Amino acid sequence: MASIRANARKILCIGRNYADHIAELSNARPKQPFFFLKPSSSILPPASGPVLRPTGVNLHYEVELALIMGKTVRDLDARDEKRAMDAIDGYAVAIDMTARNAQDEAKKKGLPWSIAKGFDTFLPLSNYLPKTAIPDPQNVELWLSVNHEMKQKDSTQLMLFPIPRILAEISQCMTLEQGDVVLTGTPKGVGSVVVGDVMKAGLRVDGKEVEEGRIEVE
Amino acid sequence: MASIRANARKILCIGRNYADHIAELSNARPKQPFFFLKPSSSILPPASGPVLRPTGVNLHYEVELALIMGKTVRDLDARDEKRAMDAIDGYAVAIDMTARNAQDEAKKKGLPWSIAKGFDTFLPLSNYLPKTAIPDPQNVELWLSVNHEMKQKDSTQLMLFPIPRILAEISQCMTLEQGDVVLTGTPKGVGSVVVGDVMKAGLRVDGKEVEEGRIEVE
Ligand SMILES: [Mg+2]
Ligand SMILES: [Mg+2]
Ligand SMILES: [Mg+2]
Repeated sequence: MASIRANARKILCIGRNYADHIAELSNARPKQPFFFLKPSSSILPPASGPVLRPTGVNLHYEVELALIMGKTVRDLDARDEKRAMDAIDGYAVAIDMTARNAQDEAKKKGLPWSIAKGFDTFLPLSNYLPKTAIPDPQNVELWLSVNHEMKQKDSTQLMLFPIPRILAEISQCMTLEQGDVVLTGTPKGVGSVVVGDVMKAGLRVDGKEVEEGRIEVE
Repeated sequence: MASIRANARKILCIGRNYADHIAELSNARPKQPFFFLKPSSSILPPASGPVLRPTGVNLHYEVELALIMGKTVRDLDARDEKRAMDAIDGYAVAIDMTARNAQDEAKKKGLPWSIAKGFDTFLPLSNYLPKTAIPDPQNVELWLSVNHEMKQKDSTQLMLFPIPRILAEISQCMTLEQGDVVLTGTPKGVGSVVVGDVMKAGLRVDGKEVEEGRIEVE
């Protein structure tokens, strides 16, 4: 699959899917998954330059496992795990960049999150990972470092809502189409970056780094 | 242009752009335009069936003038009206369907609007209108009726933020791409529809109905 960017019609992101991350932002624990949209124009493909910080923005990183949909599906049932997993074509590592101050203000005013989440370059992605690279997406270690200091490092086992539940919830609202990208939430350890900081992110399967899953971005 | 649906990578919607509509929902008047995303999967092309009401949803209509982008642009300047208007390829009439109770709850909880705005069939569109059909998009009468009763009927002259300002604001956050759709806000008169209600919407230029701009949907 050549280009995730070219094929993505929409990008859905789950919020608050790891308990320790909910605690660190003092958020309420959701009873059911909720999600928001990022525009495909926010995708920053591998080796295509730095993340751009809009003026006055407190820029936060959130490393996440991304699902690349291989089928067009709607009304998935969370209990039908096989159908949900069969609808996935592959994976990627993603950084859900967030204008945290803009998001905090939106939350306070009851306004949409689209601006805080949607700037150009706000979605650095790794290369495409075929399903064979990740035998069990619910048992992968995600990590992110800033200037060589490890900031996030947790297993996808910690997701509150596992992947079939996420895909069920989304597809009961809107049709998931081939090429759509689903971000599954970030573990604890989010924080700020400033211009010049170097972020690296990736994932490990059985303790081994998956080279194609590497992101390196300023 | 055959299909707005096929070409739309993203759909941006301006909130609160008509003073009387802000008042009817008891919202605060924004100092600058804000916007949110709808997924392209929510588009309901002409003559493709009814709007589907998700269980338990208070379904509201909002008639709007939609802009279809003809160029890929970023960082437009609100004062450069010519460049903004040149980036538009054509128009359509749109109904920004909204799960009002879900949106009210999202606003209260500081959650994203994506679910309330993003269900399948939540964006009925008219046929594509070439620019020649609308010599002045800031002087068009939008209307919407439910079961033959007129509910919305106002001029686009009443927009708080005119089109060049809207496009500037969006494109300073995210690149607007060819085929993207921009909804410019709804005038007063929004309200509920239930299953079986017939919505019609359209626009008038110099008092004359533009036939291609007609929407008729259950
Ligand atoms: Mg996130
Ligand atoms: Mg939103
Ligand atoms: Mg609207």
